[in-house]
Amino acid sequence: MFRDLFTRSPDARSSAALRELKLACHRLLSEGGAANSAAIGGEVIRWWAMLSEAARIEFFEFLDALAPDRERVLRAARAYGEASTPETVLELQNAVEPPRRELLRRLNRASGGVGTLVAMRRQLLRALEGRPRLRAVDADFSHLLASWFNPGLLDLRQVDWNSPASLLEKIIQHEAVHAIRDWSDLRRRLQKDRRCFAFFHPQLPGEPLIFVEVALVSAIPRSIAQLIGSAPSSLDSRRPSVAAFYSISNCEHGLKGVSLGNFLIKRVAEELRKEVPSIKRYCTLSPVPRLRTWLTRVQGVAAAEALRLRYGDDLERLAAAVRDGVLDSQDADRLYSCAAIFLSRHGASAAGDPVARFHLDNGARLERINLGADLSDKGLRESFGVMVNYLYDLGAVEPNHERFVRGEVVCSRQALSAARA
Amino acid sequence: MFRDLFTRSPDARSSAALRELKLACHRLLSEGGAANSAAIGGEVIRWWAMLSEAARIEFFEFLDALAPDRERVLRAARAYGEASTPETVLELQNAVEPPRRELLRRLNRASGGVGTLVAMRRQLLRALEGRPRLRAVDADFSHLLASWFNPGLLDLRQVDWNSPASLLEKIIQHEAVHAIRDWSDLRRRLQKDRRCFAFFHPQLPGEPLIFVEVALVSAIPRSIAQLIGSAPSSLDSRRPSVAAFYSISNCEHGLKGVSLGNFLIKRVAEELRKEVPSIKRYCTLSPVPRLRTWLTRVQGVAAAEALRLRYGDDLERLAAAVRDGVLDSQDADRLYSCAAIFLSRHGASAAGDPVARFHLDNGARLERINLGADLSDKGLRESFGVMVNYLYDLGAVEPNHERFVRGEVVCSRQALSAARA
Amino acid sequence: MFRDLFTRSPDARSSAALRELKLACHRLLSEGGAANSAAIGGEVIRWWAMLSEAARIEFFEFLDALAPDRERVLRAARAYGEASTPETVLELQNAVEPPRRELLRRLNRASGGVGTLVAMRRQLLRALEGRPRLRAVDADFSHLLASWFNPGLLDLRQVDWNSPASLLEKIIQHEAVHAIRDWSDLRRRLQKDRRCFAFFHPQLPGEPLIFVEVALVSAIPRSIAQLIGSAPSSLDSRRPSVAAFYSISNCEHGLKGVSLGNFLIKRVAEELRKEVPSIKRYCTLSPVPRLRTWLTRVQGVAAAEALRLRYGDDLERLAAAVRDGVLDSQDADRLYSCAAIFLSRHGASAAGDPVARFHLDNGARLERINLGADLSDKGLRESFGVMVNYLYDLGAVEPNHERFVRGEVVCSRQALSAARA
Amino acid sequence: MFRDLFTRSPDARSSAALRELKLACHRLLSEGGAANSAAIGGEVIRWWAMLSEAARIEFFEFLDALAPDRERVLRAARAYGEASTPETVLELQNAVEPPRRELLRRLNRASGGVGTLVAMRRQLLRALEGRPRLRAVDADFSHLLASWFNPGLLDLRQVDWNSPASLLEKIIQHEAVHAIRDWSDLRRRLQKDRRCFAFFHPQLPGEPLIFVEVALVSAIPRSIAQLIGSAPSSLDSRRPSVAAFYSISNCEHGLKGVSLGNFLIKRVAEELRKEVPSIKRYCTLSPVPRLRTWLTRVQGVAAAEALRLRYGDDLERLAAAVRDGVLDSQDADRLYSCAAIFLSRHGASAAGDPVARFHLDNGARLERINLGADLSDKGLRESFGVMVNYLYDLGAVEPNHERFVRGEVVCSRQALSAARA
Repeated sequence: MFRDLFTRSPDARSSAALRELKLACHRLLSEGGAANSAAIGGEVIRWWAMLSEAARIEFFEFLDALAPDRERVLRAARAYGEASTPETVLELQNAVEPPRRELLRRLNRASGGVGTLVAMRRQLLRALEGRPRLRAVDADFSHLLASWFNPGLLDLRQVDWNSPASLLEKIIQHEAVHAIRDWSDLRRRLQKDRRCFAFFHPQLPGEPLIFVEVALVSAIPRSIAQLIGSAPSSLDSRRPSVAAFYSISNCEHGLKGVSLGNFLIKRVAEELRKEVPSIKRYCTLSPVPRLRTWLTRVQGVAAAEALRLRYGDDLERLAAAVRDGVLDSQDADRLYSCAAIFLSRHGASAAGDPVARFHLDNGARLERINLGADLSDKGLRESFGVMVNYLYDLGAVEPNHERFVRGEVVCSRQALSAARA
Repeated sequence: MFRDLFTRSPDARSSAALRELKLACHRLLSEGGAANSAAIGGEVIRWWAMLSEAARIEFFEFLDALAPDRERVLRAARAYGEASTPETVLELQNAVEPPRRELLRRLNRASGGVGTLVAMRRQLLRALEGRPRLRAVDADFSHLLASWFNPGLLDLRQVDWNSPASLLEKIIQHEAVHAIRDWSDLRRRLQKDRRCFAFFHPQLPGEPLIFVEVALVSAIPRSIAQLIGSAPSSLDSRRPSVAAFYSISNCEHGLKGVSLGNFLIKRVAEELRKEVPSIKRYCTLSPVPRLRTWLTRVQGVAAAEALRLRYGDDLERLAAAVRDGVLDSQDADRLYSCAAIFLSRHGASAAGDPVARFHLDNGARLERINLGADLSDKGLRESFGVMVNYLYDLGAVEPNHERFVRGEVVCSRQALSAARA
Repeated sequence: MFRDLFTRSPDARSSAALRELKLACHRLLSEGGAANSAAIGGEVIRWWAMLSEAARIEFFEFLDALAPDRERVLRAARAYGEASTPETVLELQNAVEPPRRELLRRLNRASGGVGTLVAMRRQLLRALEGRPRLRAVDADFSHLLASWFNPGLLDLRQVDWNSPASLLEKIIQHEAVHAIRDWSDLRRRLQKDRRCFAFFHPQLPGEPLIFVEVALVSAIPRSIAQLIGSAPSSLDSRRPSVAAFYSISNCEHGLKGVSLGNFLIKRVAEELRKEVPSIKRYCTLSPVPRLRTWLTRVQGVAAAEALRLRYGDDLERLAAAVRDGVLDSQDADRLYSCAAIFLSRHGASAAGDPVARFHLDNGARLERINLGADLSDKGLRESFGVMVNYLYDLGAVEPNHERFVRGEVVCSRQALSAARA
Repeated sequence: MFRDLFTRSPDARSSAALRELKLACHRLLSEGGAANSAAIGGEVIRWWAMLSEAARIEFFEFLDALAPDRERVLRAARAYGEASTPETVLELQNAVEPPRRELLRRLNRASGGVGTLVAMRRQLLRALEGRPRLRAVDADFSHLLASWFNPGLLDLRQVDWNSPASLLEKIIQHEAVHAIRDWSDLRRRLQKDRRCFAFFHPQLPGEPLIFVEVALVSAIPRSIAQLIGSAPSSLDSRRPSVAAFYSISNCEHGLKGVSLGNFLIKRVAEELRKEVPSIKRYCTLSPVPRLRTWLTRVQGVAAAEALRLRYGDDLERLAAAVRDGVLDSQDADRLYSCAAIFLSRHGASAAGDPVARFHLDNGARLERINLGADLSDKGLRESFGVMVNYLYDLGAVEPNHERFVRGEVVCSRQALSAARA
C-alpha cells in the first residue's frame, strides 16, 4: 500500500494518503480502535506525513466534522434540566465532548504520537488564518496538549557547555530575545556566572520546549550589554545576590497557548535558591516591544507629543539620538515618563505590551525602567533602547497575580511616581 | 502553621488540616491559583497527608460539591439549542466541566502531584462503597488519570536480575496470579528463557504500574508447572518459537479502570518480535477464576449436572479427584465440555470470566483448554485445575476485537466443537 | 580449528588447546604480537578456557620457563658494574624482566583480558601448593595485578537496596565475616542507618572486588548482635556520631596480596565525612580469629594457664560457659587479660592475629576489647566471643602506621593497662 | 601552611613549595607512605601545582636522584651470578628498580593522580631538551604510563553531534592533520556518512586521548577534498563499502610514546565491521609529510634531479605548478615515481616518513599514491599535494607487521612497479 503510492504523482499520492488517513481515523475511533490504538495510530502517523499542505487543511476540516452529536446533546441537556444526578451530568459531559478529542487521545498512544500531535497543531495554527471555523478543532488540540505538556510532567534540565551539541544548536536557533551570534556567544552564556534551563517532555527527550537564560550578578542589571558579551566578572561570580532572567524563548510553536514560561521561571528560581544561597533577588531584564508603536500614536500624553514634535511623527530621529548618546536630559525624562505611563496603563491589557503582560500575570512587579539599556537595532527600533526590570518576589507573586487579574499593574514606588508625573 | 498542629490531638489535627486543605483548594482554583499552582499544590499535598480516614471522606464530599453550575449549564444548553456555533459548543463544554477537574489538573502541576492523585483515588475507591454519590468524583479521577497514564507516555522497561532489588521486591509483592514464593522463585522467572516487562510513569520511576511475565518455549504450554519451578530447558532457550504470557499483575489499585494490560501485552509482543526473531506465536496460559462458581450453579447443562451428581453440589470432591489424579476420562470430558461451554457462552459478558473477557476484548482468540494445568490450591479451588491458552495473532486482533464487541467469543475450532458437544 | 576440537576426547582436546595456546603466546611475544596483541590475546583467552586442570599447570610451567636470559643479565650487570649510566641501568632493568611479564601485559590488551588474568591467578595460587618453583610466576602476576588494580583507578560505589539483585547476590555470597543468612538479613544491612561500599574495576563493572559494611550508631558498639539483626534505631539514625566498620570481605581470591582493604576503609571514611557530618569517630568491630589457638598453647601467661586448668586444655568448656552466660567475673578478667596480652604482643607480627595486623598496619589503634561480643558458633569457637574495636583517627593513621612498622602495637591506655596487668 | 605561602613572592613561594614537595615525596616513599598514599599523594599534587618552571626542573632532578642503590644492585647481581633461583632473580629485579617508580605508583593512588602524572610527563618532555640525564626519569614515566594507559583499559567512545560541546571543542582544538575550521566544519565530519571515535581513560572521562576520523564511502578516496567540505552523498551513505581513516590525532602530549593509534584503528575497524556490514575494505588517506625534504636533497634519483632542474632546488615552483593544475604529465610521472621510491625505500626506517612508518608498523600495506590529493597550503608545502592510501587487510596485518619488522615495506603491485620504474 505505502509502496504503491510512491509511483504516483505527488498530488495523487497526497489524495490517496488523505483517503487512507480518514479510513484509519475511523478505525481508530471504532470499538476496535480502542484496543488497537497503538497500531492504528502508527498508521495514522505515516499517512499524515504524506499529506500536501492542501490535504492537511482538508484533514482539519474532517476533524471539524467530528463534532458532538447535536441530538444527543439536546437530549442530554433536557434530561439534566429535569434532574441533576451523577448520571445526567456524566451523560451531558460525554455528549458535548467532540469525538475528535477521543481520536486525538488514541493517536497519542502510538509511538511518536505526541510529536505528531504537536506538528499537527503547528500546521493547524497556520490553517486557522482565514478559517475561523477551525477554532473549535484548535480548542481541542489546545486543551489536550495543555494536559499532556503539564509542567508537573516535564523535566527541568540545566543546559550547559557539557550538553550535547545537537541541543545547543537548537538553543542558538530558537533564542528569540537577544540573538546568539555564534558558538562563542553561546559559550559566554553558559559560563559559571550564567545559567540556562529548559523544559523537556519525557517522550521528546532531545527537544527543548522552552528555555530561560539567567545571569548571576551583584545588582539588578541596567543594560543588556553588561550581561551579554562581557567576560565573567570575578565580583559577580563569587557571591552573586541577584538572578536576572534576561531571555525566555519558546522553541515549539505548536504549543502556542500552553502556558510554560511562568512555571519555568518559578522552577528555576527554586533551583537557584538551593544551588546558590547567596541569591536574594530574582528579577528580569526585559524588552518593551510595543513602546514605539504606542508612542507614535498615543493622544493626550504631553511627553509623547513633545517628543513627536521634536523628533518627527515616526520618531526615527529619537532612535538615532539614543543610539548616538545625544539625548538631552529633558527628552530622556520624557521618554522615561512615556514608558512608565505606557506600562502602568496598558501593562495588564491584552492590547498592551505582551512582555509586561506575561510577567505581571505571573505575579511579578514592575520594578525599574532603564533608558539606553538595549542599543541593538532591534532595541532601538522597538523601544528606543528602553528595558524594564520585573521583580519576582516569591512571597508576593500570588497576591500580585490576583491584583493583576483585577486589572491592576503592580509597580514599584519609583515607577509609579514616574507614571503619575 | 504545620508545626502548631503537632501539639494537638490527632482528631483536632485532622480537622484543622481539613480546614486548611479546603482553603488551599479554593486558592488553587482561584485566578491566582492558575499561575501559582505548583506552590499551592504543594500545600494541598502536605495537608492531605495529615487527614484521618474520616476527614478524607469529608474531603471527597467537598470535591463532590465542586460540581458544574446548574444555571450556567442550562443557559449554555439553551444557547446551543438555538445555534450550534464553535462558541456555544465551547461554552457548553466548559459549563458542564466540574471545577474539581481543573482543581485536580492544577494539583498535578505540583512536585509529587501525580503520586498524590493516585493515592487519593485509592482512598476514594474505598470510600465509594456505600457512597454512590461519589461516583461523579470518581469519574473525574478516572478520566484524568487515564489521560495522565496514557500508554503512549509510559516507559516500558525489562525487569531482570540486574534490576534494583527494591523493584524486584515490588514484583514479588504484587504478583497476583501465581504467587512468587521467594527470591529463588523470582530468579527462576528472570532467567534467560523468561522475560518480565513493566510499565513505569516518568514521574514515578521506581514504581511498576503493571507487569507481565513471559516464558519463551518451544510449544504452547499445557500447565503452569512446566513454566514455574522447572529449570531452564536448553531446548526451549535455544530457538524458542512461542512466547507464553503466563501472568499479568496490576501494582497500583488507584489506577483501577485505567486500561494498561492490553497495551502492555502488545508492546511486549512487539519487543520480543524484534529481540527473538524465532518466536512465531504469542499466547497466554491463563486461569479461569469463575469456572467453579458457574459450575456449581448452572442449570440445564447436562455435563455440569452429571458432575454435581457424582461429586456433590459444592464439587469439593471433584477438586480432590483432580488433585489426586483419579479423574476418569468420562468426567474429564465433562469438565472439559463445561469449561468450553462456560467460556464460549460467558467469555464476552461482563458477568462472565474476567480473564477471558480481558483477553478476548484485547482481540485474542480462545485457543485451547487444558485440564490438570494448575494443581495449586488456588487453581483447584477456582477451576478444578483448568487453564486456558488465549492466542494473540497480531494480524487478527483488530477484527477479533470487533467481533468481541458484537458479543462473539472468538474460538479455535477445537474449543468451539467442545462447546457444542 | 576451534570446531575440530569439539569432536575429540576431553583430554585430547585439552592437549591440543595447550599446544595452540603456547603457539599463540609465542606469537603474542613476537614482534608481530606487539601490534596485534588485542587480536592474538583474544585467541589466548579462548584456548586457555579449554584447558583441563592438569594442562593449566603445564601452562604455568611454560610461563615459568619464560624467564630472564641469564647470559644477558650477567652481561648487563657487568656493564653496569663498570659504569652506571642511564643506558646501563635501563639495559639491566630490561634484562632482568622476565619475558612473561610482557606476555601478560600484551594479554591484558585483549577484550576480557583483565578478567582472564585474574582467573589465571586464581588457578595459579592453587597450583602453587607443592610447586614452590612457580613463585616467580606468581610474583609477576602479583606485581602486574597490583598495578592494574591500583586503588586510584578503582570505582568506589555504594551498594544499597536499589543496587542490582545480581550484585547483591554476590555480596551475600562473599560476606566472609558475619554470614548473611538471606535477603531479609541483607536488607537490614542496607537500611538508612547502615552503609555498604565496594570497589569495582572499570573493566569488570558487575564484579565487586572488596566490600565493607558500616553501621552508623551513637556509640562505639560492644557486640555484633546490636549491629546485625536489630531494627533501625531512631536514636542512631537521627544524628549518628560513630561509623563502625563491622565487616570487610574480599570477593576475588585471584587478587590475593593486592592491598585494597586499607584504601577502601579510608575512602569510605572520607565519603561518610562528607555525607554525614555528625560522625566524629571511625572504628571497627572486629573478630580475633587466632585467640583460641594461641590461648590453648601459650606458655608463661598466668591467666591463660589458669583458664586451661579450669576449662580443660582445649578450652571447649570455656566457650560453653561464655555461650551460656555463666562465666564468673574472675575468669572474665582472665579472658580479657589474655586477649589484651595476645593482641599487644602479637598484633604486629606476621604469625599473630591477621585482623589485628591488618588494622594496625593501616594505622588504626587497638581501642577496646569486648567480652561476649560475638556469641555465634564461629565467634565462640575462634575467640570465646571476644571482639575488638580498632579506632581510625584519620589524623593519626600515618604516625600510627610508622610505629606499627617499627614493631609497636598502638593501644588505647585501657587496652594497654589490661595487657600489662 | 598552604595559606602562608600566598603571602610570599612567587619565587619564594615556589621554593617553599618545592621543599614541601620533596618532604611529601619522602613521606610517600616511607613505610608509612604505602598505607597512606592516597592522602600524602594529594599533598604532593597540591605542592606540585605551585612550582615555577625552574622548580619543576629541580623536582625532576630530585626524581633522577631516586635511582637504584648501586651497592645493592651489584650485590644482587653477584648472588644471581652464583645461583639463579626465584629468590635471587626477584632480589635483582627489586634492586634495579629505581625508588622513583614506586613513588610514582603511590602517587597514582591519590585522587587526581593519573592526571597529574600525565601533566608531569608533559613538563618533563620539555625539560628533557638539553638535559639528557633526565632520560632515565622519562623512561620510568613512559613505562608506567604505558601500563596505566593500556588500551585494554581504555574506553572507546563514538564522538558525534550529540556529544557534549566541551568534548567537541577539544576535538576541534586537537585535530592535527586537517584542521577543523569551525563548528560547521566539525558538524560535517560527524554526519551519518562519517564517524569519529576516541579513546578515554576511566579516570579522565572528559579528556579524549586520541581520536580518529573516518569516512564511509563507496571507493578508496583519491583526495581529501572529497572527504572534507563535501555534503553527504546519498550514494555513499546508503551502502558504503570502504571505511577511509583520514585523520588521527593525539590530544595528550604527556603520553608521547604510549602506543594508542594502532589499537584505536583496529578497535574502530572492529566496531565498524559490526555496525556497517557492507564495509569490505579499511584504508587510510594519509599525508606524506617528509616528501619534500627528501626530494630537495636526494642524490642519484633521476626523477628528483629532473624536477629540481626544472623547478629550482627548493622546488617552490613545483608546488605552485601543482596548485595551479599546470603540472605536465611527464613531471607528474616523475613526482609519482619519486613518492613511490621515497616510501618504498624509507617507509620502514626511523629517519623516513613518520606516517608511513606508523601504518606500515601497524601491518598496513602501501596501496596507492595519489597526486593532487591535498591542495591545502600544508599539503602543497610538505608533499606537493601527494597523499597515500594505506590498506588495512585485517587478515594480513600480523604477517605484514612481521615483514615490516624485518625492514620490508609491504606495497601493492602498482606502487611497487612505480618504485622500480
